[in-house]
Amino acid sequence: MYIERIRNKALQEKIMTAEEAALLIQDGMNIGTSGFTPSGYPKAVPLALAKRVKESGERMRIGLFTGASVGDELDGELARAGIVSMRAPYQTNDSMRDYINSGGTEYIDMHLSHMPQHIRGGYFKKLDIAVIEAVAITEDGNIVPSTSVGNSPVFIEMAQKVIIEINTSQPIELEGMADIYTCENPPYRKPIPIEKVDDRIGTPYIYCSSEKIAAIVFTDIPDMPGALAPINDAAKGMSEKFLDFLRKEVREGRMPKNLLPLQSGVGSVANAVLAGLKDSEFNNLTCYTEVVQDSMLELLDSKKAVFASTTALTLSDTALKKFKDNIIFYKDKIILRPQEISNNPEVIRRLGVISMNTAIEVDIYGNVNSTHIMGQKMMNGIGGSGDFTRNASLSVFFTQSTAKEGKISSVVPMVSHCDHTEHDVMLIVTERGVADLRGLSPKERAKRIIENCAHPDYKPALTHYMKTAGEGKNKHTPHVLKEALSMHIRFVETGTMQ
Amino acid sequence: MYIERIRNKALQEKIMTAEEAALLIQDGMNIGTSGFTPSGYPKAVPLALAKRVKESGERMRIGLFTGASVGDELDGELARAGIVSMRAPYQTNDSMRDYINSGGTEYIDMHLSHMPQHIRGGYFKKLDIAVIEAVAITEDGNIVPSTSVGNSPVFIEMAQKVIIEINTSQPIELEGMADIYTCENPPYRKPIPIEKVDDRIGTPYIYCSSEKIAAIVFTDIPDMPGALAPINDAAKGMSEKFLDFLRKEVREGRMPKNLLPLQSGVGSVANAVLAGLKDSEFNNLTCYTEVVQDSMLELLDSKKAVFASTTALTLSDTALKKFKDNIIFYKDKIILRPQEISNNPEVIRRLGVISMNTAIEVDIYGNVNSTHIMGQKMMNGIGGSGDFTRNASLSVFFTQSTAKEGKISSVVPMVSHCDHTEHDVMLIVTERGVADLRGLSPKERAKRIIENCAHPDYKPALTHYMKTAGEGKNKHTPHVLKEALSMHIRFVETGTMQ
Repeated sequence: MYIERIRNKALQEKIMTAEEAALLIQDGMNIGTSGFTPSGYPKAVPLALAKRVKESGERMRIGLFTGASVGDELDGELARAGIVSMRAPYQTNDSMRDYINSGGTEYIDMHLSHMPQHIRGGYFKKLDIAVIEAVAITEDGNIVPSTSVGNSPVFIEMAQKVIIEINTSQPIELEGMADIYTCENPPYRKPIPIEKVDDRIGTPYIYCSSEKIAAIVFTDIPDMPGALAPINDAAKGMSEKFLDFLRKEVREGRMPKNLLPLQSGVGSVANAVLAGLKDSEFNNLTCYTEVVQDSMLELLDSKKAVFASTTALTLSDTALKKFKDNIIFYKDKIILRPQEISNNPEVIRRLGVISMNTAIEVDIYGNVNSTHIMGQKMMNGIGGSGDFTRNASLSVFFTQSTAKEGKISSVVPMVSHCDHTEHDVMLIVTERGVADLRGLSPKERAKRIIENCAHPDYKPALTHYMKTAGEGKNKHTPHVLKEALSMHIRFVETGTMQ
Repeated sequence: MYIERIRNKALQEKIMTAEEAALLIQDGMNIGTSGFTPSGYPKAVPLALAKRVKESGERMRIGLFTGASVGDELDGELARAGIVSMRAPYQTNDSMRDYINSGGTEYIDMHLSHMPQHIRGGYFKKLDIAVIEAVAITEDGNIVPSTSVGNSPVFIEMAQKVIIEINTSQPIELEGMADIYTCENPPYRKPIPIEKVDDRIGTPYIYCSSEKIAAIVFTDIPDMPGALAPINDAAKGMSEKFLDFLRKEVREGRMPKNLLPLQSGVGSVANAVLAGLKDSEFNNLTCYTEVVQDSMLELLDSKKAVFASTTALTLSDTALKKFKDNIIFYKDKIILRPQEISNNPEVIRRLGVISMNTAIEVDIYGNVNSTHIMGQKMMNGIGGSGDFTRNASLSVFFTQSTAKEGKISSVVPMVSHCDHTEHDVMLIVTERGVADLRGLSPKERAKRIIENCAHPDYKPALTHYMKTAGEGKNKHTPHVLKEALSMHIRFVETGTMQ
């Protein structure tokens, strides 16, 4: 086992228990870990750290950087142990979310493409330790990442010390799937030479100076991805409407027959769209995204999709088994890239990605809130949605027209928090319909969004708002400031927007 | 004259008067013109068109696309003639602004980098006529642009017919300054091979099929740039504070000694910063921007700056004279690129540009409003500020802490319109100080912005808002929705936020 997983003999001396490795982490340190949309994150060391702090009661406050969201063994345990003073750039964990919203930690909700360059540029305090899950260490001491790459390359580069968690539950056959390419800091940055989703431009391992490796821990705790969001009727409806829209784009010559590379966020609608594509007439599809989930594997299985570029493989137990059993089939159809590349504006704009993300709410002028419920409660974070939306050739946001059994309208006069501006959002899709906002002025967008996307229960209020606002003297983006957030205020005060 | 300016003999037959050429423009057409931040825009044909329509009273409604803002002969005349049904992507003209805000035309306020790909992608109705100012037509019938390139290449490519305005007031020596490179549509787009601001990657002219040229008009009406914003004390103060910040960045190793390529918006602060740099210890500066103004020429004159890449040269009469007299000196120090390249996220992120733009207002969490006064009145548009801000290695917004003799605070609890989100804004500079927001959570940003940037008259109200909001249960981005826009509402109702 050791010989297969740690091929550099000298490094075998660094093997220790998770408890011993966790002792390297001290109060006040900044820790950068592997892990993206929860896969490929370290498990044994954070579990040991949380256990120790809970038992000893010692003072411990650390800054925690990751690729994106990580599993409960990391975000959950450390949040419940109360030891995270700062968290960046993204999370989806219940305990971490509560911790953030209760003011327990400072959360820096960042574009995922910004994170590596901010770390390398020295915009954060120095990184003390990188904790990286790997499937193997090569003869030269380099790191073969597991089910995600995320920020591992930059964390390994910038940290003072590195702890490696070799996870034996992750198949060794993952080796060769990663493609590690590192961007220099300006003014030395070069063009990223990707012209097609399947271009390999780097090495299959992450370079690591052997002296940096302070500990190697073995574990077999599997990734714990969240349960796959089921495809409900609303999601299916949105998917069907969106596929019809894509057919029209192809028919009218604005999109190639095999579409453009797909980026799809996590969730029910994303799954429904990919499932819909599997049963569609589309062929030779490709994917340039940040997360590959079960539905993408099925698209590859069905031969409808030919390639997927991603930074994370987030699979259910069933899909993971299928993946392991057929790894030879998948190996030349999936590339795992650093998030610096998967989410890079340069590549996304060049490839003309179709971005598909979920909105919490949209306003009548096309602004999108992806992060804050009622403008205040942090849900997850912006994640990669901005990186993709701003550079997509077609940027799409999905949302059901209402939430909380109809008590919340997802279409509002003014978003209570803005993550994607009116300048960026091309298509809004609800179970009611599609609003194509391209080439429209704010007033025209409002009309189309209310007509095509809003729930009938809320159309009268939204139409009334538009009418009243339109009677003012500013007719480009008409608003009544006193009423702009009134639906939100009503919800906060009465529990319903109605 | 004809021989020097129209070297293709066959095309000399297309010479006609502006009135004759304007007859090609008919009701319902979409027109794309040259011009960027008012320079290099056509003058004679729009003047003739406006005159004719005013005199004849004929029905005329056209869609008007440009590079960015254009002069009064185009935006002003057509707005006052009431013949623009749709306008994109940017404007700064008084008459056009009134026309937009009074509902006379539909205005599509777009990222300048999006415009060419939306036109080429068929996201707008087809372009009937391109009207392009040029200094010459080559032997092969290709177009040598004048003081701006903007969207001229894509308009010429996509329009059915082309009208060329040869402007003899523009020096023929401009020939050779332009560098025309065209991006294919995905999936055929290639890496843009710019690694340094002075890399030339294209041709000095715009390719144009001779059959498309329907008219050639001669004119000598000069560019009419707006008066240069004078450098007031507040602008000087902001510039000094910002330069001190840059010195610290260099000292602490986050910025090379000659900084990174500068992008600077239009206005008093931009001028003050460039003037400040001229008198500073900085050397070998470069510029990757969309507009070069007088202050940038002075930076080149002083040898402090060695190169400027831009899409427009917007010079005062005095600077234009100097430019013409010393064109040999400037010719190898300035490149004029299409806005598809000058504003391209790919290149901006690669070069690590320092973006410097002006905010109308900022909120305590770092969101920026660049477009709508009190959330409703369109000022100019987002222009290129988003293209640069989102991809800059250091994104900066300048604003005086108050406007309207202190009746408006430029720091508010919640922006009334959001163009640049909290995820994008790294530095806010007012005459009061600098707020470095990198690596801060929303609450930490609020504290720093209020302390360092807000005007003392408004600090108590903003601090009170933070305190009240912080007592709620959501402590990540605390807000009191009922109070979030109250300063704006007070201004609208009473004429002051105080």
